Amino acid sequence: MKHWFALAATLSLSLQLRAEVVFKTVEYKEGSTALEGLSVYDNAMQGKRPGILVVHQWKGLGDYEKKRAEMLAKLGYNVFAVDIYGKGRRFTDPKDASAEAAKYKNDRALLRARVNAGLAVLKKHELTDATKVAAIGYCFGGTTALELARSGADISGIVSFHGGLNTPTPADAQKIKGKVLALHGADDPHVPPAEVAAFEEEMRKAKVDWSLVSYGGAVHSFTDWNAGSDNSKGSAYNEKADKRSWEAMKTFFAELFR
Amino acid sequence: MKHWFALAATLSLSLQLRAEVVFKTVEYKEGSTALEGLSVYDNAMQGKRPGILVVHQWKGLGDYEKKRAEMLAKLGYNVFAVDIYGKGRRFTDPKDASAEAAKYKNDRALLRARVNAGLAVLKKHELTDATKVAAIGYCFGGTTALELARSGADISGIVSFHGGLNTPTPADAQKIKGKVLALHGADDPHVPPAEVAAFEEEMRKAKVDWSLVSYGGAVHSFTDWNAGSDNSKGSAYNEKADKRSWEAMKTFFAELFR
Repeated sequence: MKHWFALAATLSLSLQLRAEVVFKTVEYKEGSTALEGLSVYDNAMQGKRPGILVVHQWKGLGDYEKKRAEMLAKLGYNVFAVDIYGKGRRFTDPKDASAEAAKYKNDRALLRARVNAGLAVLKKHELTDATKVAAIGYCFGGTTALELARSGADISGIVSFHGGLNTPTPADAQKIKGKVLALHGADDPHVPPAEVAAFEEEMRKAKVDWSLVSYGGAVHSFTDWNAGSDNSKGSAYNEKADKRSWEAMKTFFAELFR
Repeated sequence: MKHWFALAATLSLSLQLRAEVVFKTVEYKEGSTALEGLSVYDNAMQGKRPGILVVHQWKGLGDYEKKRAEMLAKLGYNVFAVDIYGKGRRFTDPKDASAEAAKYKNDRALLRARVNAGLAVLKKHELTDATKVAAIGYCFGGTTALELARSGADISGIVSFHGGLNTPTPADAQKIKGKVLALHGADDPHVPPAEVAAFEEEMRKAKVDWSLVSYGGAVHSFTDWNAGSDNSKGSAYNEKADKRSWEAMKTFFAELFR
């Protein structure tokens, strides 16, 4: 009986330790631009682990991405939430956010440079197994994760959650080294059927290892619990699609890192 | 220490028992037509469990479906592999199989009657928890599983693996009671983009709870290990898409039956 108590105490202790997710602000640079990302990991785990780069939505790195990074850290990943916009450049007004995102959508070379700078931070981190690295992104971040792949970055795979799928340079898909998973709201007005079809054709031509999931009844931002519930606005949270897409990501990572 | 040996012995025994999958031929009728299906379950498990109906490909119920039924039984489901064509009606020549499948594709009322007869057998089975029943189907069987849903059958969900997605009566989607998961080869020449788009529109209009996964590089029959490996023939086995679609089905069932 003593042994059972000891075992229970050990289990309880390890559960407490697992809950110790560490968040550390990381300042780094791309060229001369100061950037501020967030390193997130589970302190109770020992040693190197697969690394996941998290790319933010159009408003810049904030609480939403921090929460996703925490969820990934609890799954056993070493996470770095990248900063594309620059230190202090965070937006609350949709107009400002849209203008900032457009700067990078219209300058994919700059976008690729910024996301690759974040990838370098993640790969260099002492807890990252640099042979096992993937990127995920939401909305603008999904577009960015795809551009990271198209830049020829040496990563195992990327996941786009309701990301824009278009690119001015579809031929760059030939440089994609990892696997691609696109998680798409079937009713997303910001990523219309023609854009999905063009993306599929881009992947097909370049013989990328890709899959795309369409979630019925889901519009843009379907994973974002701050997006409200009114589909008619074009962006809305959808709990089913959120949970299903998270499970799809987990299964994808299990395949990448097994 | 004694306890550990006893535990190990028990575990070993239960592992041996788990391997005892039982196959029983079941004769039943739809109207006056004699049908012969296959009941498959794990004899080592106790009590009722969720039931899965497996619908065969165009050649009729055979070894392929038997193997899938066995895989499902090992996952803990009570499985019935339905017979749509009739006792003894099994085909090896693609021409004959195609002609037989066409009979049912052109008579959806008959197809629905046949698949519902199989569903009734599954629901009545002593090991089936009749509140937790789903159907899966491959190729012709995927089409059939969808027609089962469109018939208004009381089931939790259906999964179509490389099934034809078209229907002469899209308005019947309003009768669908369960969730729908369509697993599709992105390069399947037998289920072209226009058919996928029409299916999505059918689901959308009827507000069905649906998802569709497109697997890059996969053509028709991507789960069928007898289909060869030459994509240019339009049908070919694709190991990645096979494994990914099986995982997608497992996650779907976990959601349905939790």
